[in-house]
This record gives sequence, structure tokens and C-alpha cells, in this order.
Amino acid sequence: MENLIVFGHKSPDTDTICSAIAMSDLQKKLGKEVKAVRLGELNKETKYALDYLGVEVPELISKVEDNQEVILVDHNEFTQSVDNIENAKIKMVVDHHRISDFKTAEPLYYRAEPVGCTCTVLFKLYKENGVQIDKKIAGLMLSAIISDTLLLKSPTKTDEDEKAVKELAEIAGLDYEKYGLDMLKAGTDLSDLSGDELINLDCKEFNLNDKKAKVAQVNTADIPEMMTRKAEFEAAMQKDIATNGVDLFVFAITDIINSNSEVIVLGNSAPIFEKAFGKTLEDNTAFLPGVVSRKKQILPVLQENA
Amino acid sequence: MENLIVFGHKSPDTDTICSAIAMSDLQKKLGKEVKAVRLGELNKETKYALDYLGVEVPELISKVEDNQEVILVDHNEFTQSVDNIENAKIKMVVDHHRISDFKTAEPLYYRAEPVGCTCTVLFKLYKENGVQIDKKIAGLMLSAIISDTLLLKSPTKTDEDEKAVKELAEIAGLDYEKYGLDMLKAGTDLSDLSGDELINLDCKEFNLNDKKAKVAQVNTADIPEMMTRKAEFEAAMQKDIATNGVDLFVFAITDIINSNSEVIVLGNSAPIFEKAFGKTLEDNTAFLPGVVSRKKQILPVLQENA
Repeated sequence: MENLIVFGHKSPDTDTICSAIAMSDLQKKLGKEVKAVRLGELNKETKYALDYLGVEVPELISKVEDNQEVILVDHNEFTQSVDNIENAKIKMVVDHHRISDFKTAEPLYYRAEPVGCTCTVLFKLYKENGVQIDKKIAGLMLSAIISDTLLLKSPTKTDEDEKAVKELAEIAGLDYEKYGLDMLKAGTDLSDLSGDELINLDCKEFNLNDKKAKVAQVNTADIPEMMTRKAEFEAAMQKDIATNGVDLFVFAITDIINSNSEVIVLGNSAPIFEKAFGKTLEDNTAFLPGVVSRKKQILPVLQENA
Repeated sequence: MENLIVFGHKSPDTDTICSAIAMSDLQKKLGKEVKAVRLGELNKETKYALDYLGVEVPELISKVEDNQEVILVDHNEFTQSVDNIENAKIKMVVDHHRISDFKTAEPLYYRAEPVGCTCTVLFKLYKENGVQIDKKIAGLMLSAIISDTLLLKSPTKTDEDEKAVKELAEIAGLDYEKYGLDMLKAGTDLSDLSGDELINLDCKEFNLNDKKAKVAQVNTADIPEMMTRKAEFEAAMQKDIATNGVDLFVFAITDIINSNSEVIVLGNSAPIFEKAFGKTLEDNTAFLPGVVSRKKQILPVLQENA
């Protein structure tokens, strides 16, 4: 393995993959040899972006050796990171999430900002370091911001994300609204994925006090169509709960056109969800109008009320 | 209390105090009302710097209310922070230490770099934001970097610290070598402090696996003179160990002229120190040639071998 590798979280999404590639590019231009890798299979949205832009898929890894030097992007929590991260040497982190379940033995470079996307922070890092952004890298960063902010419609979106999107679209030579909608729609074609695969496509694990919680999310343009597979999702979630000792499993099916979510909630700690959101689950489900952001509209609600 | 306050660690040193004042200045110039406060009494070195530069001493606080919005500088570990930090809303952190015993419920701005001093990071933040540094603030930041790097002689010093020192000395209109030595020497006049006060002057608490460890440090120009008070220090350390359930207490007396340290080590876990440094304590003491940096030369050695 290379001296220094960079990766995003497990169940990679477009920001995690594009951030790893962009960070490796930035570091190379600053004189450091850094290899971008990934911790899981690409989803269709990310595949669409990489295909469209003609960018190679990073190598898959599942664990790191002791003392491997690493850069983390788009995450910091060890539960979301590579296996054996506790024994790696974390040299840098670039992120846009809360900090939790993270520690180092030595000082490091840590850069997090409360913006909609890691690539928005990376966009600033290119500028601060006076490094020009290539056309392909601009396309990748643009794709990541469109993905994380649902085409600038998510409440996680900030003015800085919007500014970055406009400038990156210019460099990439892309009509970001058209390209963005095509890319998001490519991500909603989930028909060939099994229930198992769908609940793991974009799944994050958290410690909720002493409970093990998972919140998975998929994007769709048609909630009712997705819900025809409810029994299949529930079976997959129950299997995961039993196998991995999960206390609360929330599966959010998010309508990216109308900005709502339908959630399926299972696990012994399902009442935590009901209490947190003030909703009674009906047949294990609830409708959350206006909710599209796991980070801003689901996780804090669970954490503050757990 | 103000809407937003900024402070450094307990047992404040020059970097912690000057970083809080500089961060409050920077944020004000960016349009945010932020008040600098402190968590303990100033040491003589810091007093010298503030007196010399004609800067007011920040207000003392000991705890924060639930949901108080705060900015942390020069630290992140909750054990080193204000009482009730767990229930505050941490909006920003600017630091140069490892990350540990730290978490937030929401995304935040976090900026840490592995440089010698928090004020070196703040110096970059002024530049990145295009904010001019006033003469007084330049003097404060210069004092902090001189203090943390022992006039650029500590192994924690980086090229960025050196660059900042030269530019800040220019703005402050100070001969940094003369001013720096005077300031450091002012800090070594410890004759009027009791043993209790001395072991708390610059003391940091850490969790070492499941052990409670404290590493305190004082600067001196004359180790043998300081060691005439050994019995007094030991009594103070034993009292603190008994009162606060400390497992390992290391008190480092650092010669800033010749760059060495004499340590007094007490507590049930003193063998951890002996094993980590490969030294047998004689009469509870050991001489550590070339060791001046707690962060770079004492803490990692303990942590990696605990």
C-alpha cells in the first residue's frame, strides 16, 4: 500500500468518492504522493458522474495496516471509517460533519466547515493554496455538491456551496441544472438492487447514547413505487438488526423532486424515533414532509432526544 | 453572558490568552460580536506580554450555561475546557493539538494544524480572510508563538511559525529576540508562588487509557535553584493526587536556556512513566536531556506506551 492514502466513508456516496479523488489531486499538486481509494461499491449516481467525466474508479480497500498514514475526507467517526482506523496515523481530515467517535495521538491538520459538502471545503483549499482546478476535477467537485445539496435545494446548502457550484460549472463547462438533474435521476434507478443492497447503499451507523443506530437513505422520484417493496426492505432491515445487534434502524426514502421523505423504522429502540419526531409509526412507517437531509433533519433530532 | 464567547484551556498560558483575544478581534472584524474570556489566572509571562502591549486582561469565567455558544482556541479536550462544556454549543475550534475527548452534536468550523502555536493558525486566518492585523494584536500573536516555541527553539516549531514570527515582529515594531527573551524570563520568576500554585500554573489533564494523568510544566533559567523546593512540590503533588484521584502526576521543570527538563514523577502509575521513557526514577526524579516540549516529547511517549 502507498505511504499515504485518502478515502471517504463506508457506503460511499458521490461526495465521498469525489472528495477523495480531488484531495489526492490537490495534494499531488502540492508535492505529496497520495492515492485515492474507496471503502465500498459505487452507487449509480456516482457511477454516472465518473463515467460522464471519464474518471477512473478508485481502488477498493477494506482495512488498513497498523501505522498506515491516511487522510480522511467526508467523515471522521471511526464507526464510518475503514477497519483498523484506530491504529492508523491520521494526518489530515477534511469534512463537513459533526465530530464524534474520533481521536488521534498526535496533532494533525483538521479542516471542517458547516457547509453542504466536503467538496465546497476542498474548493476553498484549492484557492487558498493557489492551485488551479482542472476541468475534470471541477466536474467531480460540482457533482459532489449537487449530490449533497440535492441541486442546491437541501437545507444543508449554504451560500458557499452555491458560489462553488457556479464557479465549478464554469470551469467544467457544464450546465449544472441539466447535468445535475440527469445525475440525480441516474441515482434513483434502483430497480436492479436487492433490499439488502438498498438498505446498505448509503447507510450510516451511529452511537445513540449506548444504542447502536443506523440511518440509511435512498433517493427516488417516486415514493409510492418504492414502497411497493416495503416487505422486502423490512426483511433486509430485520436481518441486519439481528446479525449486527442494531437497536434502531431508520430507512429514509427521499423524494428529490418534491423534497419529502417516507421512513421505515424498525428495532427495539423504534420508540426513540417516535418520541424524537413526535410521530406514531403506522405499520412501521411515517411520512416526514419537507425532510430531505439526514444530517440536518434526522440525526440531530434523534441525538437531541435519545 | 454574551451570545458568543471564546476561550482557551484551563491553567491558561500565553498562547491560550492571546489566541482568545486575537480570535475575538478577527471575528469582530468579520462582523460577529465575540467576547474573549479566560478560565484561570494569568501567569507572569502572559502578564508581562499584556502589560507591555497595553492590552486588557479578559474576564474570568469558571463555567458556562447550557446551550451557551462558544469558540474554543488552543484546546479541544473537554477535560481541559470550561465546566459544563458538554452542554455548550461549540461553533468553532482553532487549535494545534491532537483531537481527543471531544465531540459535537452538529457540524462546526474546526481548524487545526500541526504547527507550534495556535496563533500561527490565526495568523493564516487573518490572511485568508483579508483582514489586516493591528499592531497590538500582532504583538499578542508574536508573544504566543515565542512562548509556545521557546523563541523558535522547541522541536514543535515549524517553518510557518518562523514565518509568522518575522512578519508579526515587523507589524508590532518589536525586536522579537530581545522582547522574547525578556518575556520568557519574566515567566521564570516563580519565587512568590507556592508549590500548589506552581504545579497548577500550566497543568494539563489527560486520560491515559483508563488512568487519570496530569502533566504540569514550568519554565526556568536555573533547574538546581528550582529543585531546592522539591519537597514542597512533592507535597503539593501528593495532595492533588489524593484529592483528585490522579494516577500519574508528572511535573516538568524546563530549562529554557539549555533546553533540558528535570521531571518529578508521582502516583501509583509512575511505572508507566519509567517504562515509557526507559528511565528508573531516582528519588522520584529523572533528567530528560533535550526535552522541552510537553506536546511533542512527553505526551506522545506516555500515550504510545501506556
